[in-house]
Amino acid sequence: MGSTSLEMASRFVDRSPFNRWLGMSVLEAGEQGIVIGIPWREELVSSPEARSTHGGILASLVDAAGDYAVALQVGHPVPTMDMHVDYHRVATPGSLRAEGQVVHLGKRFATAQARVLDMDGRLIASGRGLYLLRSPQAAGSQDTSAAGGPGA
Amino acid sequence: MGSTSLEMASRFVDRSPFNRWLGMSVLEAGEQGIVIGIPWREELVSSPEARSTHGGILASLVDAAGDYAVALQVGHPVPTMDMHVDYHRVATPGSLRAEGQVVHLGKRFATAQARVLDMDGRLIASGRGLYLLRSPQAAGSQDTSAAGGPGA
Amino acid sequence: MGSTSLEMASRFVDRSPFNRWLGMSVLEAGEQGIVIGIPWREELVSSPEARSTHGGILASLVDAAGDYAVALQVGHPVPTMDMHVDYHRVATPGSLRAEGQVVHLGKRFATAQARVLDMDGRLIASGRGLYLLRSPQAAGSQDTSAAGGPGA
Amino acid sequence: MGSTSLEMASRFVDRSPFNRWLGMSVLEAGEQGIVIGIPWREELVSSPEARSTHGGILASLVDAAGDYAVALQVGHPVPTMDMHVDYHRVATPGSLRAEGQVVHLGKRFATAQARVLDMDGRLIASGRGLYLLRSPQAAGSQDTSAAGGPGA
Repeated sequence: MGSTSLEMASRFVDRSPFNRWLGMSVLEAGEQGIVIGIPWREELVSSPEARSTHGGILASLVDAAGDYAVALQVGHPVPTMDMHVDYHRVATPGSLRAEGQVVHLGKRFATAQARVLDMDGRLIASGRGLYLLRSPQAAGSQDTSAAGGPGA
Repeated sequence: MGSTSLEMASRFVDRSPFNRWLGMSVLEAGEQGIVIGIPWREELVSSPEARSTHGGILASLVDAAGDYAVALQVGHPVPTMDMHVDYHRVATPGSLRAEGQVVHLGKRFATAQARVLDMDGRLIASGRGLYLLRSPQAAGSQDTSAAGGPGA
Repeated sequence: MGSTSLEMASRFVDRSPFNRWLGMSVLEAGEQGIVIGIPWREELVSSPEARSTHGGILASLVDAAGDYAVALQVGHPVPTMDMHVDYHRVATPGSLRAEGQVVHLGKRFATAQARVLDMDGRLIASGRGLYLLRSPQAAGSQDTSAAGGPGA
Repeated sequence: MGSTSLEMASRFVDRSPFNRWLGMSVLEAGEQGIVIGIPWREELVSSPEARSTHGGILASLVDAAGDYAVALQVGHPVPTMDMHVDYHRVATPGSLRAEGQVVHLGKRFATAQARVLDMDGRLIASGRGLYLLRSPQAAGSQDTSAAGGPGA
């Protein structure tokens, strides 16, 4: 994994105000995929009793890891068309890392998968997303069908 | 939709630090489902050029609307087992609302669906979640397979 | 729901050898969506003890009901890009019906949802699919990212 | 991959009338997962022009490969709770193989992923399923929320 990929991925990550709020950083980046991380912060909590990390935060990590794995291959972040997330275990307070990998890179669409792990390497969540690689029309269309992700 | 349901749902929503950061409020709540809303804030932005709301935020709204729709029927928020989100349109700065409805309420699991709309009533995202109603073991298990959602 | 829509949908359904093997017929078709049905046959069984209908058959019904709901609006069956199916209840031997509805019709993509019911009106499965409306390139591309559905 | 795993998986596969109609066989089975295959047959066709394999057939392969990957670890097929399938490429007439792997094996639920490949090794579809490992109640419940898959 080269420093160029890491630098490129870091630029993509840093552009997003939500990523910056999450404190997201790129830990590894290369041909094999990407690893991103976020530190703990109190606002990530879903249930105050369980002290669990909110499912929307875990979904954000799945989306981002998948998106930037694709971005490393196409040179820019890509709009997310849809996403599926499985929650395996409660994530209690602590930093999280997410590993993203491209499953299929087509001409117009890409599918990527991601795993979210806690500090002890336990699998917290996993999932996959479908990403739009390029548009037949000019960007900024009202009908992207691809509105949510890091590259939107 | 009665005030009791609205009050109950508001209590569930207010418990979560992430919901409070989002400024989430309950707009409607009853037998038919729930409507929640969030105001705009700059940290929700994904792409600074498109000024788009981050897909993880939209996923959080789908998860929450589905979860609290179930919660209104079972009396408490429920852990999310998995979630699917479709992104239909870029959400530019502005408040968002999410409508949640129960699709199937079983003895142990529930499925709910949700739609996210912008201020002009345009459909931004939609999706569905699977929720765990009760556990054969004591709560707090390491193996809930249901860790992400508002009720986790 | 007009006879024209019913006839058009029936033509789409009848074109597919797999649909014909399933004995699929169109029960209702119109602006509101579509209702398709299949009779029972022994080869649909998954577990011989439970006498349950195979999940792949239920997935086929979700996909088809969603696809033909879109087809009624765009004039032809459409390739499925991806699909999510929730299984709610074991379907024991008997005919099944599936109701499909368009969730969002964009310029290039459509999302539809579907419910599968048994003869007693009980909800067996439900789900949603993403469909490709038109291609920027000539059809027959190796890279449709949209290969599975009734319109592929 | 031992012959015992292969024999056990083959017994699971052969029990199902739908699998037998598909001509499904187990090609590999072991700790790492499972590989199943099906031959071509005319009734698998979705569109007569594209000669494409129906999305419901591909979904059946994803479901089965995921289910039997879990079954190899728990000793019996398991009910599918939900499933997500991405379609990457049209599958033209020819035999197909599906590789299944366990993503997470919990106490009560398991998540597995699968890839469907054509004879030339091209990725046709991929996806993931959530499976129910054991029930707090007696089997045969009306409310399994897990009705579709090979083990239902």
